[in-house]
Amino acid sequence: MPETSEHLVHRSNKDDLVKRLNRIEGQVRGISKMISEDKYCVDILNQIAAARAALDQVGLIILEGHVRGCVVRGIKEANEDAIVTELLDVIKRFV
Amino acid sequence: MPETSEHLVHRSNKDDLVKRLNRIEGQVRGISKMISEDKYCVDILNQIAAARAALDQVGLIILEGHVRGCVVRGIKEANEDAIVTELLDVIKRFV
Amino acid sequence: MPETSEHLVHRSNKDDLVKRLNRIEGQVRGISKMISEDKYCVDILNQIAAARAALDQVGLIILEGHVRGCVVRGIKEANEDAIVTELLDVIKRFV
Amino acid sequence: MPETSEHLVHRSNKDDLVKRLNRIEGQVRGISKMISEDKYCVDILNQIAAARAALDQVGLIILEGHVRGCVVRGIKEANEDAIVTELLDVIKRFV
Repeated sequence: MPETSEHLVHRSNKDDLVKRLNRIEGQVRGISKMISEDKYCVDILNQIAAARAALDQVGLIILEGHVRGCVVRGIKEANEDAIVTELLDVIKRFV
Repeated sequence: MPETSEHLVHRSNKDDLVKRLNRIEGQVRGISKMISEDKYCVDILNQIAAARAALDQVGLIILEGHVRGCVVRGIKEANEDAIVTELLDVIKRFV
Repeated sequence: MPETSEHLVHRSNKDDLVKRLNRIEGQVRGISKMISEDKYCVDILNQIAAARAALDQVGLIILEGHVRGCVVRGIKEANEDAIVTELLDVIKRFV
Repeated sequence: MPETSEHLVHRSNKDDLVKRLNRIEGQVRGISKMISEDKYCVDILNQIAAARAALDQVGLIILEGHVRGCVVRGIKEANEDAIVTELLDVIKRFV
């Protein structure tokens, strides 16, 4: 609904986030390989927990950028109802 | 510590798990692309929540196989202390 | 830091929240009784999961009131840095 | 389904668990009071996060006793299917 240009993930964060996601992609590929090679289940589960934690970390960084950017701007522009409802929905998906 | 052959992820599950992980790998790559293309933060956060839920699902399938396989076998072979301590540790990482 | 009067939980919610917390208090007392009476562990665990879910629900209602009230007001009064940092901290405690 | 006597929470844990639950009951009552007295939302949310963490801790202690007691015994008595299915269900409720 808002124009893309208004919702840019903060540029300095972008490189960091892409690097983190590349690492997570590698972790997921590694988990797939562990399953194919019949590695021990508990080692696989620990890798899954690590990938999930890394993904949560990316989510929190993006959420922080969203609140400091889009949410603050939306409220200042008196567009608060829509932006706040949307924020609460996304928080509920993570809790 | 146990021999690999004793800890095989159940064969019929293996194909399904590898397919699920390939899909998650694609989701993670898609999230990275959304960030590069400055997509709206909330759409990115929803994709992250979806990837995390898919990863949890894989974790639960592997945990189930582990309990039904390694844990049951370990307890029957009177190796219960080590296997139960390890199981509780892995559960704590997921809760 | 802000005056109490500015941070009132919305009045219509207050009665509902107090009722929910009374019910949770009763659930916690019931769990204690189940332990004293040596009830089956899985039944106790299910009650704990139910109490935790009820507590999360209360948290989400208060968080919603906080965002719609204090956060929106803080941002409009250009006090955005402090209020947003505090909000992100509290979200991290729940994720 | 199993007789109560077989599923006793380990006696040495019982006093500790009841004490923890009494403390949680007090925390929940305190949260209710904070709401009645219009305390700041973020302070209330932090108290809710603390009560939830304390409840999770109780859940993990009971889960540990359950696995070391009922689950090990069930598997040794070749009653493994029912007990393992029940265990996986309860883990899913907590993850």
